[in-house]
Amino acid sequence: MGKRESVGVALLGAGTVGAGVAQTLADRADALARYGGRPLRLVGVLVRDTAKPRAGLQQDVRLTSDPTALPAADDVDIVIEAMGGEQPALSCIQSALRAGKHVVTANKLVMALHGPELIALAAERGVTLAFEASVGGGIPTIGPLVRDLAGNRITAVNAVINGTTNYMLTRMAREAASYEDALAEAQRNGYAEPDPTDDVDGKDAAYKLAILSTLAFRCTVREPDVYREGIRGLDAADFEYARELGYVIKLLATSRLRDGAVQARVHPAFLPERHPLAKVDGVYNAVELEGDLVGWTMLQGPGAGASPTTSAIVGDVLAIVRASATGSALSGYPDVRERVSILPVTDLETKYYLRLRAYDKPGVMAQITGVLGEMGVSLASIIQKEVPEDAGTPAEVVIITHKARESAVQEAVRKLEALAVVYGAPKLVRIEDGSA
Amino acid sequence: MGKRESVGVALLGAGTVGAGVAQTLADRADALARYGGRPLRLVGVLVRDTAKPRAGLQQDVRLTSDPTALPAADDVDIVIEAMGGEQPALSCIQSALRAGKHVVTANKLVMALHGPELIALAAERGVTLAFEASVGGGIPTIGPLVRDLAGNRITAVNAVINGTTNYMLTRMAREAASYEDALAEAQRNGYAEPDPTDDVDGKDAAYKLAILSTLAFRCTVREPDVYREGIRGLDAADFEYARELGYVIKLLATSRLRDGAVQARVHPAFLPERHPLAKVDGVYNAVELEGDLVGWTMLQGPGAGASPTTSAIVGDVLAIVRASATGSALSGYPDVRERVSILPVTDLETKYYLRLRAYDKPGVMAQITGVLGEMGVSLASIIQKEVPEDAGTPAEVVIITHKARESAVQEAVRKLEALAVVYGAPKLVRIEDGSA
Repeated sequence: MGKRESVGVALLGAGTVGAGVAQTLADRADALARYGGRPLRLVGVLVRDTAKPRAGLQQDVRLTSDPTALPAADDVDIVIEAMGGEQPALSCIQSALRAGKHVVTANKLVMALHGPELIALAAERGVTLAFEASVGGGIPTIGPLVRDLAGNRITAVNAVINGTTNYMLTRMAREAASYEDALAEAQRNGYAEPDPTDDVDGKDAAYKLAILSTLAFRCTVREPDVYREGIRGLDAADFEYARELGYVIKLLATSRLRDGAVQARVHPAFLPERHPLAKVDGVYNAVELEGDLVGWTMLQGPGAGASPTTSAIVGDVLAIVRASATGSALSGYPDVRERVSILPVTDLETKYYLRLRAYDKPGVMAQITGVLGEMGVSLASIIQKEVPEDAGTPAEVVIITHKARESAVQEAVRKLEALAVVYGAPKLVRIEDGSA
Repeated sequence: MGKRESVGVALLGAGTVGAGVAQTLADRADALARYGGRPLRLVGVLVRDTAKPRAGLQQDVRLTSDPTALPAADDVDIVIEAMGGEQPALSCIQSALRAGKHVVTANKLVMALHGPELIALAAERGVTLAFEASVGGGIPTIGPLVRDLAGNRITAVNAVINGTTNYMLTRMAREAASYEDALAEAQRNGYAEPDPTDDVDGKDAAYKLAILSTLAFRCTVREPDVYREGIRGLDAADFEYARELGYVIKLLATSRLRDGAVQARVHPAFLPERHPLAKVDGVYNAVELEGDLVGWTMLQGPGAGASPTTSAIVGDVLAIVRASATGSALSGYPDVRERVSILPVTDLETKYYLRLRAYDKPGVMAQITGVLGEMGVSLASIIQKEVPEDAGTPAEVVIITHKARESAVQEAVRKLEALAVVYGAPKLVRIEDGSA
């Protein structure tokens, strides 16, 4: 790559992100050449259908539907992977790295499952694997983490990192929208997929948290290491109580390193209104990093979208081109293959919000508080909404606990559910007020 | 530098930042060596008084009070400049770069006045000049701007970037503290210097804005190019009106690139309560960047302090060490020596808050509104506080304008001041509600 006059770029995938990248490479060719020191030349694009006309591509750009054709091609210096999904993306990335090509990827799934091995493979081949676009769309997160903050011992990552659910939760809080209405609206506006599972069940956030945690703590944290709960169980009442109590509900992605062990989890959480992440609304994302030197820092912006993702990809490409002008790979990522103990969520100690429905009979509160007391969970407050005396319908009881151990709280919830006076399953939401 | 087993580091300055860096290099030597690939060895420190005992320094570290001794020394690979001030810091940086040493500096004054030439000198010598610590303390700002967001055309920088004034303004807003009390408190808490001029008059913010604007727009913007007003003229009444009207007062540092010209200014501004920068309180800083691909992104954190500044310096040092492992300089900064037209503040179009005192006589409002109308400045609202009829003291009049041209508004203010019914100088504050 050091010898050619231009830098050969292959683009794998021509969906919204791929098309956005191709457009940007064409539109601002001059500015990118000036910044990188050499022109970027798009030599080929991996597409599903080679017959489909592609506007704006130069005549000499090779279109192929064969995933093996471009990663190792002689005239390719940098491979941009914008296919998504595990395969064939993973194989393409591996082939490209093995063939000595630099790789830029937006693929959070591949990085969350295979990141440490791919980073090591790139280092072994003396090339760069860059993946700023895999987390937080256009927000600079990975760069700051591995470079600007590299002198820190990073102790915690807290993030609102899924735009779909944040959009939905914002609607549910502001317009008292139901889960179903919020989802339908997100889908109408293109913020949620037709199958929203990965977003609403927290999997997308868990992928991103695994990547950030791996880099932050410099050890392997994979997606299955992340405890995960989605937003499906929340309803309008939870948002009402949250507001009454001075909280905002967010899908929190959080990980901590303590005594050499990592706890990583994605779940809805009550955040105090004044919490920086509580103010991140709609499709915006934010990542808080805690380090022993910097203290606290937060990076915020658009967490998804073709254009912000293109921003991150082109930033990575330019960094590689500038570094390779001197014949080297970009100073990349540390070796993160070391395994680390993962703490289960039952080890968590925090405050809890517990909402349940109970038949309003004499002694019912005594039974409920008795169960909690028995498990050593002490109460900060109880709210019982008045119901018409003859209604026969269960009353809603909301309990806020003092700091308690998750294992004890979960056991208490199981016991509460088994009580004859309790109707249905209690709803449990963790409260993160930063007092940990 | 590629050949030695360890990386020789010289530290210029042993004040709070210098001492923090020395401490960190010693405390986490192993972690830094692992991350950088080679150990860092502190070979010398430039101090004021070589006789003063220095705790925690290795025996073989050379202490010198001669600024010329270390920058060009054979066993030095990286020079960390933490002296502050223009001279001898500038000469030291120049000597070090000329001698082929990489330089890491926290010096905003030097970078705001001489940055473009120093960046070019470093590029010419094939070494790196890194200065993340010169803006925003530990907040990653320069890295994201020149690397992660390099694919963007950056169109605007908006920042709350001076911790001293932000602390003072937060106290004035929350506790209705006077300017004098807020300053005294900031000084007591170590957030303001005994001579607070550079902070309260906006000079510190202007240095940082010049650096950010230079990198954002890739052309030379120097501190004298930045229009500047400090916070001295604000008083409790302004904060009261701001709150009534739904605004927060911040010392805003903002620059824009439009039609190839830059407008850069530092002054108090009314920001709507929901504005992201309105929520940045106390000594925290935040930088908003607007780019055509990313849209909007904001970087937030501690804007000053020995430990956050050390975070930025050590991050820069590690990036240099990692890049130089492959024999190259860090992919640095673009050439920013090109000059750009600077637009005067009189070209600004925005809304304005105008507070004046006027004797409550018949026809006085007609005179005031007449002056504004004559200058083509249209009014959004007028508040006149009731005063006791027999008081003979002037009444306070607060005017919010629609969007108007600064030149017209300034002329109107001069004419208002000349009116016999107007008492004293009107107070003018720009309103930035993002509707530009």
